[in-house]
Amino acid sequence: MLGVLGGMGPLATVDFLAKLVAATAAETDQQHMPLLVRSVPQIPDRSACIMHGGESPLPALRFGLRELGRGGATVAVIPCNTAHYWADDLVGDDLPPLLHIVDAVAAHLAEVLPDGAPIAVLSTTGTRAARVYENRLDQTRWPILEATSAGAAAVASGIAMVKAGQVEAASQIFAQQVLAERARGAQGVILACTEIPAALHSDDPLVVDATDALARRCVRWFRETYRGVPSSPASGGRL
Amino acid sequence: MLGVLGGMGPLATVDFLAKLVAATAAETDQQHMPLLVRSVPQIPDRSACIMHGGESPLPALRFGLRELGRGGATVAVIPCNTAHYWADDLVGDDLPPLLHIVDAVAAHLAEVLPDGAPIAVLSTTGTRAARVYENRLDQTRWPILEATSAGAAAVASGIAMVKAGQVEAASQIFAQQVLAERARGAQGVILACTEIPAALHSDDPLVVDATDALARRCVRWFRETYRGVPSSPASGGRL
Repeated sequence: MLGVLGGMGPLATVDFLAKLVAATAAETDQQHMPLLVRSVPQIPDRSACIMHGGESPLPALRFGLRELGRGGATVAVIPCNTAHYWADDLVGDDLPPLLHIVDAVAAHLAEVLPDGAPIAVLSTTGTRAARVYENRLDQTRWPILEATSAGAAAVASGIAMVKAGQVEAASQIFAQQVLAERARGAQGVILACTEIPAALHSDDPLVVDATDALARRCVRWFRETYRGVPSSPASGGRL
Repeated sequence: MLGVLGGMGPLATVDFLAKLVAATAAETDQQHMPLLVRSVPQIPDRSACIMHGGESPLPALRFGLRELGRGGATVAVIPCNTAHYWADDLVGDDLPPLLHIVDAVAAHLAEVLPDGAPIAVLSTTGTRAARVYENRLDQTRWPILEATSAGAAAVASGIAMVKAGQVEAASQIFAQQVLAERARGAQGVILACTEIPAALHSDDPLVVDATDALARRCVRWFRETYRGVPSSPASGGRL
């Protein structure tokens, strides 16, 4: 069973789940993957912790993942880019292994971008300060353009709008930032906060929806690794 | 924490969660309600059991609800109308209490329809055969028109299309059925299978989206009954 540690934010979790259903080729309900989703938004703000030393979300992240494992999840994802700052601390015998969102984005980039093509990463201030993408993506293949302060501020304001339900206004801000990043040379633009693709839809494969990349990574796990479902709860119910 | 027993079908679960987020007036992530969602589509088909005596989904429903309770859910919903045939069997000390989808629809009807106004219920063959709405709605207030066989067949085919991902084609079938029900005198039309509003969107309050009614019922629960969230997992994590 796939565990989803959600709530960061709530709309981004729903967006991830919708993309998971859409990415699954299925004719019947029964062909879809089993999920356990824990969406508890009452978790300390990730960016506030990284930027200002606010309360750490790590204990809540560990607790949530452990609960997913106890509930039957054998692998887990977190549809929040910033939370991946703590990914290396979310490893242990009591925790289901994580499918990492940056690895999912890298798999997509490998399909659509030549080596050497510069990219831009639209993200929260926390994701950028923590170098979530810079430290994990292979920058010898795809160098990451440094964000401008104006661009970073615009993206941050758009993210706050999504969290407050102002999706339409946020969508316009994000679309402008994609254009601005291309104008300064980015060949690929990563929508690297899950709130962004929840507001901005693009069919351009070079506008990389990290949420969708993660959903497609989960579908590959389901197809390649997943080994059946017990036909009744009597078999233990651990899917 | 609200428990959601989902997967019946997967898209309907996502549609319910999206409506829950939309119905919650919130400025920040932390103001949204905490959720535990168990979406396991590998559950025996509800209508097949009711219509042909196929394998009962009741053990899987009970197991799923118990798991939600063990994971911290203090109340639960099932975004599947047909599954409510078993609602009376889903009661016990080991199970979180259910918010019933038909009661949520009745609360909406009381706001928009005068007493005596006839209604139509678009549903699966199972929901209709099991009289899920007929037995629970107060028909002295809102008499339910008996479904025509042509209408029932069209709705069933649309539901199967949604489960197979053919959402656009299904949407047209459902829209035609709403018109047909009105033409024969229905003042309110209940979209009483969660696959229907996942495909057909309507802003008309007399086209009653049972999924949305259930989501709004959950938001009332969250506002009126819910008593805070512990600030850290150390407080037990039972939300």
